[in-house]
Amino acid sequence: MNSNYDLAWLRYGGASVERSAAIQLFEGYLSNIVAAGEGSSPLFRTAVQELTEGLAKLTGKQPAVEPNAAADRFVALGTIGGAGNPLLNDSVEGAEAARLGEEGYIIRKAAREGKDYILIAGGSDKGLLYGVFHFLRLLQTAGQSPDGLNLVEAPKYQLRMVNQWDNMDGSIERGYAGQSIFYQDSKIVSDLTRVREYARLLASVGINGIAINNVNVHEVETKLITPELLPDVARVADVFREYGIRLYLSVNFAAPIELGGTSTADPLEPAVQEWWKQRTADIYRYVADFGGFLVKADSENRPGPFTYGRDHADGANMLAEALEPYGGLVLWRCFVYDCHQDWRDRKTDRARAAYDHFKPLDGRFKDNVILQIKNGPMDFQVREPVSPLFGAMKQTNQMLEFQITQEYTGQQRHVCYLIPQWKEVLEFDTLCEGEGSKVKDIVAGQVHPYKHSGITAVSSIGDDYNWTGHYLAQSNLYGYGRLLWNPELSAEEIAEEWTSMTFGVNQDVASTILDILMESWPTYESYTSPLGVGWMVVPHYHYGPDVDGYEYSKWGTYHFADRDGIGVDRTLATGTGYSHQYVGANAALYDSLESCPDELLLFFHHVPYTYVLKSGKTVIQHIYDTHFAGVEQVEKWIARWDALESKLDPQRFAHVKERLLEQLESAKHWRDVINTYFYRKSGIKDQHNRVIY
Amino acid sequence: MNSNYDLAWLRYGGASVERSAAIQLFEGYLSNIVAAGEGSSPLFRTAVQELTEGLAKLTGKQPAVEPNAAADRFVALGTIGGAGNPLLNDSVEGAEAARLGEEGYIIRKAAREGKDYILIAGGSDKGLLYGVFHFLRLLQTAGQSPDGLNLVEAPKYQLRMVNQWDNMDGSIERGYAGQSIFYQDSKIVSDLTRVREYARLLASVGINGIAINNVNVHEVETKLITPELLPDVARVADVFREYGIRLYLSVNFAAPIELGGTSTADPLEPAVQEWWKQRTADIYRYVADFGGFLVKADSENRPGPFTYGRDHADGANMLAEALEPYGGLVLWRCFVYDCHQDWRDRKTDRARAAYDHFKPLDGRFKDNVILQIKNGPMDFQVREPVSPLFGAMKQTNQMLEFQITQEYTGQQRHVCYLIPQWKEVLEFDTLCEGEGSKVKDIVAGQVHPYKHSGITAVSSIGDDYNWTGHYLAQSNLYGYGRLLWNPELSAEEIAEEWTSMTFGVNQDVASTILDILMESWPTYESYTSPLGVGWMVVPHYHYGPDVDGYEYSKWGTYHFADRDGIGVDRTLATGTGYSHQYVGANAALYDSLESCPDELLLFFHHVPYTYVLKSGKTVIQHIYDTHFAGVEQVEKWIARWDALESKLDPQRFAHVKERLLEQLESAKHWRDVINTYFYRKSGIKDQHNRVIY
Repeated sequence: MNSNYDLAWLRYGGASVERSAAIQLFEGYLSNIVAAGEGSSPLFRTAVQELTEGLAKLTGKQPAVEPNAAADRFVALGTIGGAGNPLLNDSVEGAEAARLGEEGYIIRKAAREGKDYILIAGGSDKGLLYGVFHFLRLLQTAGQSPDGLNLVEAPKYQLRMVNQWDNMDGSIERGYAGQSIFYQDSKIVSDLTRVREYARLLASVGINGIAINNVNVHEVETKLITPELLPDVARVADVFREYGIRLYLSVNFAAPIELGGTSTADPLEPAVQEWWKQRTADIYRYVADFGGFLVKADSENRPGPFTYGRDHADGANMLAEALEPYGGLVLWRCFVYDCHQDWRDRKTDRARAAYDHFKPLDGRFKDNVILQIKNGPMDFQVREPVSPLFGAMKQTNQMLEFQITQEYTGQQRHVCYLIPQWKEVLEFDTLCEGEGSKVKDIVAGQVHPYKHSGITAVSSIGDDYNWTGHYLAQSNLYGYGRLLWNPELSAEEIAEEWTSMTFGVNQDVASTILDILMESWPTYESYTSPLGVGWMVVPHYHYGPDVDGYEYSKWGTYHFADRDGIGVDRTLATGTGYSHQYVGANAALYDSLESCPDELLLFFHHVPYTYVLKSGKTVIQHIYDTHFAGVEQVEKWIARWDALESKLDPQRFAHVKERLLEQLESAKHWRDVINTYFYRKSGIKDQHNRVIY
Repeated sequence: MNSNYDLAWLRYGGASVERSAAIQLFEGYLSNIVAAGEGSSPLFRTAVQELTEGLAKLTGKQPAVEPNAAADRFVALGTIGGAGNPLLNDSVEGAEAARLGEEGYIIRKAAREGKDYILIAGGSDKGLLYGVFHFLRLLQTAGQSPDGLNLVEAPKYQLRMVNQWDNMDGSIERGYAGQSIFYQDSKIVSDLTRVREYARLLASVGINGIAINNVNVHEVETKLITPELLPDVARVADVFREYGIRLYLSVNFAAPIELGGTSTADPLEPAVQEWWKQRTADIYRYVADFGGFLVKADSENRPGPFTYGRDHADGANMLAEALEPYGGLVLWRCFVYDCHQDWRDRKTDRARAAYDHFKPLDGRFKDNVILQIKNGPMDFQVREPVSPLFGAMKQTNQMLEFQITQEYTGQQRHVCYLIPQWKEVLEFDTLCEGEGSKVKDIVAGQVHPYKHSGITAVSSIGDDYNWTGHYLAQSNLYGYGRLLWNPELSAEEIAEEWTSMTFGVNQDVASTILDILMESWPTYESYTSPLGVGWMVVPHYHYGPDVDGYEYSKWGTYHFADRDGIGVDRTLATGTGYSHQYVGANAALYDSLESCPDELLLFFHHVPYTYVLKSGKTVIQHIYDTHFAGVEQVEKWIARWDALESKLDPQRFAHVKERLLEQLESAKHWRDVINTYFYRKSGIKDQHNRVIY
């Protein structure tokens, strides 16, 4: 494993001249930290240490840390409800404190007995840590002055997780940033320095849970829940605990057979239930605050309850029962579909699968089970509709799964800032309880009163020096955390924060990166598969174009392009009826060719190449135009990036430049393959007579 | 490595009742073997041993081996020109003996001093061994009686080789029959039992050379020419020597850099030349009869002389000079083409590459260099024209390379008996010296007087119990050897020999297997890519259909199908001009749309789907018809195979049945993908309204 690493957005320095302006406003407060009373909790110590180190780097001076207010100006840290702390108690009202919850915090200018200070008060030590990271961010971003400073923050979502798809051989499924930082040679690594650094990055944006192994649980990984490997799992949990992050494990539903010597993994079999109870007891002996199990069952050839004639509720509830005494959760994935579909069968529709499988089970799950639902019905395509399963189950906890790792969006070789995509998902109004039943509120438990809910995502990091393969891809990990804290933040705000913390606040740098990030998702979409149809990628690898790569395959991923037209008919009258998994007006919106939005047209309808879009262009001309435009956009970015050469460190300048050049070549390849494919098939010429092969 | 194995065509038993009929005719001779005089050579001992064991199995009685003729009837073994042996000398004329050469033999009924015997006389001990295998075959096949028995045989080709594409990690490139029998865990295996058994199989059909490592020579394999690994190489050479097979090694052109610490591998650099001379001297110290080097240079990213601005003659001659003192050969592959081609570039034609690279070098190669040329200009497709390089170089030794391993012909999961394909290649008349300049004679050195020539092929075996993945695929290895001995044998004769030796001579079994084998190549062709266009396979794996899989790639492998037509224009007037790499009437034959044979039409011409073939069908209807017919053919085979259940051992019956069922499913997939692809593209309906998706 590569043990060198970049500090990403926690560099607190390489500080440009402009940056110091923000800090100067607070300068008088930053030499002294008053950390009273509660200092014995590891989380409290982490908060103090992060603030101390952050301020030292930002100001160039080591701040003094004292238990009591000696100086006239200082930063005061404290936890509400901790040992009586007058610096807090005088400044925070009881009602206000109650609203914060454990994870919230207050940052405000306060005064007491002639002292003038910045108060960071957490609802718990964890909230305090989040407050510290917020304060450090604040010093690097906006021109916020101490005067009138009064922030009261609490996270929108209860569960704010990442899923590592790391395998114990050190590989990472769908990883594009090197090898695992957790595993090597089928062992958990002994040196957890990078794991700790990863915990810092996650905590700094509010992540509070992590599943540390791939949802496809192979032979060695199956043993993570056994005393053979639990001591190592506990070491990892210890590191994350200091940053307020709970550890989860992905489990193999067939583990009782593979490890326990039972002849079955039937969830209704008492011996199997007992086996899981024993394993769970083992786990909690080693990791007292263990989060729970993440489960991919009966999906893509993974074992599951179907083998025994049981359903997903039976399977999930068995695990939930084992975890219940300890407060653990079951995160049960809904990515269940027939991955041995016959492409000749046009009735089966993979898009329908999650809803068809799970909706009928509403009410059957225990309340410590949460269904983990991918944002779309297919699989993290650059464009797909929002999964109709969100909100469709009133009595079943739900959480949303995004993919930070850019499996289908350029694999961290192309820039693709995903926050705008995720915001569209969160803002989607399911109408499940009438207007205003947005996904963002459903998975916060605010539409149906879920006991547990939240958001998770597949992580994008590996042991590459820069963590994410592409420097600019760090923005997705950063933004993911920020969005989960507060989905009302705009994609631009998040990008600006990240850019100034990562690259400094030089205006040219900031505006160039902001533009590239904000243009990147539409650009990637423009030169890849058109109008929501998806899947025109090289099978298995998912990088680069192969229009028919998934067309005659078993994966349920088809575009049905012929010489006349293209698209999947998912309407009720003539298609698979998927459109009617949506509620009311949404169903009508998608079902009707007239009202279906252009960007999802081919997901819902099969149309001739000459069909005229709402944009006024024909489908075929849209394909040609967007594919030429996408490449031109990348060319523009390269010119803009080149202009930053003198304003960036050479290493990061050159790295991003190299990736942009690769993106350009790849975009041209995409453009030419897609345009040629459709020209050869349709025979319709480009209106502008550009080169198509 | 799997140490259990089937005896293939050397089982000499599981003898059916019918078989004994052939043996009964010779019965009186088979109890005694007279092996006079020369018995000290290992090859002679091998011959005696093979005959002894073979007869014991065939007759159920151990024959007596004696130095002198004691019995009245016996089988006499001897080597012409060995110590005076009256049993031979009285029966073989001097002129006849001279024509045999070292590898030839005589099998005849002879009589002397009241003794009546079957004489097997070899031109050398190696010829004797071949004679023994022939006699054993004879006992199992035709109803030949001893009366009038008089066979005089010598091989057509000097070099009759196989190339193992085995890697030292135990994998086999393009291997479909398990792991390597030579290597495991980056070492040569210690137990050479299976290697010896493989040597027996090869010698029994006349193979006399083997290159034991992959032409893509990776890091560990580069060291096979060093004293670190040569002792193990010598162990393998010892085994093959006892069966008359010379050992060759594939070498890495960059070995001087990788092993020798030179900064270059420039063939004109004295230090590099000296390095190779030293290594060659080392090799011959360990393996005194070492055959030589097999080289893949400047091909598919392998290093070669191009790196240093040198050409292939420079590269090959340097190695040849090192080998010359020992009589070693350089087998220099002509599989050189641009594997980073831009699919958008329609001028570059991979089919032209071998001829364009090598033809201008005629006369520049040393006489212990042999150019190794694949049968076709592309890469072992189910149908392609014969390489125009054959015969195009009068002053340069040439040999032909076939592929026994079924990379593009069903990967030993589909039956595809390749002898008919190979015979077409051998019978192709290049016209290079006027009519009658057939490939079979060119690579025998009988058209141009090559000093060295012959045929080689990529082997198909691995450590699977049955050696070849599919039992019926054993026929290709068997037939390959037989064809190299005598290319005048018909594909049917070879299939019959193999079937009766392998499955006995039950007439139902024999005729069913003969029919399946003889129908198999046309059948495989019928349901895969049509009319010579090739390449519609899943990239990299090369199993199963992917019509556009290689269409937008860097490999130079395109079909250019659009909504109107398909095919590659390789004519002189409007295409790449490849057709004019052929001589005279052949160039005209292929260049003209009117005269080009149907089966190669799309290799040479781009035509509309409505173009009418010589068969009277349109191209599109031909595609539909052949694809439906191919599947029906496989269905018929299954019915015929089922009828053999009571006549075959259960293990082989079930194995072949299972493969046939897989072939059927795969053939249906091919049929439906290809038909659907072209129906969607052309919009032209099947005349018979069969199901196309």
